[in-house]
Amino acid sequence: MYIYVTKELSDLISESDKKYFRAKIKGDELYFSKLDKIDNKFLQSNIVFGNIAPPMIEQSKNLEWVQLESTGFSEYMYLEKLNKEITITNLKGFFAKQVAQTALASILAIYRGIIKTENLKKKRKWVGDPIRSSLSILDNKYVVLIGNGSINKFFKNYIKPFNCKIISFNSKSKKDNIIKHLRKAELVISALPGTSKTNNFFNKSKLNSLNKNCIFVNVGRGNSVDENHLIQILKKNQIRGAALDVTNDEPLKKNSILWSLDNIVLTQHSGGGLDTEIIDKIDFFLDNLKRFKSNKKKLTNIVSLSKGY
Amino acid sequence: MYIYVTKELSDLISESDKKYFRAKIKGDELYFSKLDKIDNKFLQSNIVFGNIAPPMIEQSKNLEWVQLESTGFSEYMYLEKLNKEITITNLKGFFAKQVAQTALASILAIYRGIIKTENLKKKRKWVGDPIRSSLSILDNKYVVLIGNGSINKFFKNYIKPFNCKIISFNSKSKKDNIIKHLRKAELVISALPGTSKTNNFFNKSKLNSLNKNCIFVNVGRGNSVDENHLIQILKKNQIRGAALDVTNDEPLKKNSILWSLDNIVLTQHSGGGLDTEIIDKIDFFLDNLKRFKSNKKKLTNIVSLSKGY
Repeated sequence: MYIYVTKELSDLISESDKKYFRAKIKGDELYFSKLDKIDNKFLQSNIVFGNIAPPMIEQSKNLEWVQLESTGFSEYMYLEKLNKEITITNLKGFFAKQVAQTALASILAIYRGIIKTENLKKKRKWVGDPIRSSLSILDNKYVVLIGNGSINKFFKNYIKPFNCKIISFNSKSKKDNIIKHLRKAELVISALPGTSKTNNFFNKSKLNSLNKNCIFVNVGRGNSVDENHLIQILKKNQIRGAALDVTNDEPLKKNSILWSLDNIVLTQHSGGGLDTEIIDKIDFFLDNLKRFKSNKKKLTNIVSLSKGY
Repeated sequence: MYIYVTKELSDLISESDKKYFRAKIKGDELYFSKLDKIDNKFLQSNIVFGNIAPPMIEQSKNLEWVQLESTGFSEYMYLEKLNKEITITNLKGFFAKQVAQTALASILAIYRGIIKTENLKKKRKWVGDPIRSSLSILDNKYVVLIGNGSINKFFKNYIKPFNCKIISFNSKSKKDNIIKHLRKAELVISALPGTSKTNNFFNKSKLNSLNKNCIFVNVGRGNSVDENHLIQILKKNQIRGAALDVTNDEPLKKNSILWSLDNIVLTQHSGGGLDTEIIDKIDFFLDNLKRFKSNKKKLTNIVSLSKGY
């Protein structure tokens, strides 16, 4: 087997991790690309590990399986029409724990004034007692979870000790029912995937239904939110705040108003990050490689390009 | 009964909360002090609500009960020697939930890069993916709790979903055994009260026993830590970081090195804060007032000035 690791992923793998990776691959050829292009190395590859550019997949000759290093795969969905016999697997669930903890960390940072005191620290300014009356606790809150995937499953488990009322919806739930609960929500956690079906899910009417104590958290994809309208309601303090791991533009443009809002936490799509992320990805690939060799159909996380999940 | 509310506390009570307070007090006189001094108003008081200066208690004539608005009461301990028949109650347990959440918020803020991304936000700087490899999650950690009070009870409950190994000690535990576990600790939560027995509990040898992955959290009192030595080990990155709600000096001096350390969270003794704090304190007092009238001995949270808790 010829295994091609994309340049983007190769660049993130340290020399010692490459050594570890090579030691685990027996009898196959492992190639860390330095510049992704349609060359002999690519054309002889049976397997790609990493988010290769979709047009390269179109040009492939021997490619049977692509292991993505992300959960999202919307840019590959058009390949369905090519009728190539290529299996694509993603990292669904791989980032869920981390992302759920970034959501919880962001909420607690707002409630417990961590954002405020970090900014005071930079100014060497002691405020002390007057901070106290601006703080909240995560206790007995009305929580609306949007998305029934693994992120919200972890989040739900993490907030068990906090006596919250939790209600879950997905993008197929009835709009009227969702809005009824959004009105009461003190926390909204959106973890929707980035598909055409989730586009603008949080439109003006849903965003307007949020109340002034509500914190809106998006750890799904930026496409699901009318970002301009979210900015408007944040500027007017119509809601308490927001925690955005994802945005419409990534990187966020220098002139985005989001940078300047005091009532938001912006985590720059780092929510899935972890110090062991690269080695964990290699281990995931190695496990799937074993499956691929025994029976292609037993691969973990085969995505449906037509359904989008 | 004459009830005297200290100037410091009175200043924090809004007009509408004063109205609420007055409506609940029937037949007694409620006096919101504008300047605490030994005057007739003070001398006729049977009850003081708030942290009155101890020398004023020495001068009191009719005083029977002081309801403090804090958990700490070390500055009142010398009054034991006066042999006055005055009962002092504190707010033990009242702040525990909040403080435990500030501890958790601070830890997750370090693990999930919230401190880092907040500082990037101020600079409108997108870093994105390279943030990811610096992040950790709260999962399967070795946690050492110092102090068996209500703060650590709440904290222990809050971290139940995170599969941690938790070991508890108090200031009476054997030093060798504590150090043995501190060496392995990835999180240390100190919630010791500020008494002469806890002075310098975290001395050089205990602080030196912490490892490079450890986050040290102090939500007790500043006296328990050799702060200069803590600063030294933080500067050398001998430990991963610290979250300090309390410090030796409060307010922290402008020239304190703590302000400049990137690997700490400084919450300025706001850990017990809550938006409903004042009204909750009034309700606590009202409940204790009922108890006081039925039987002085039934007061909640009578402190022992000799024992210090």
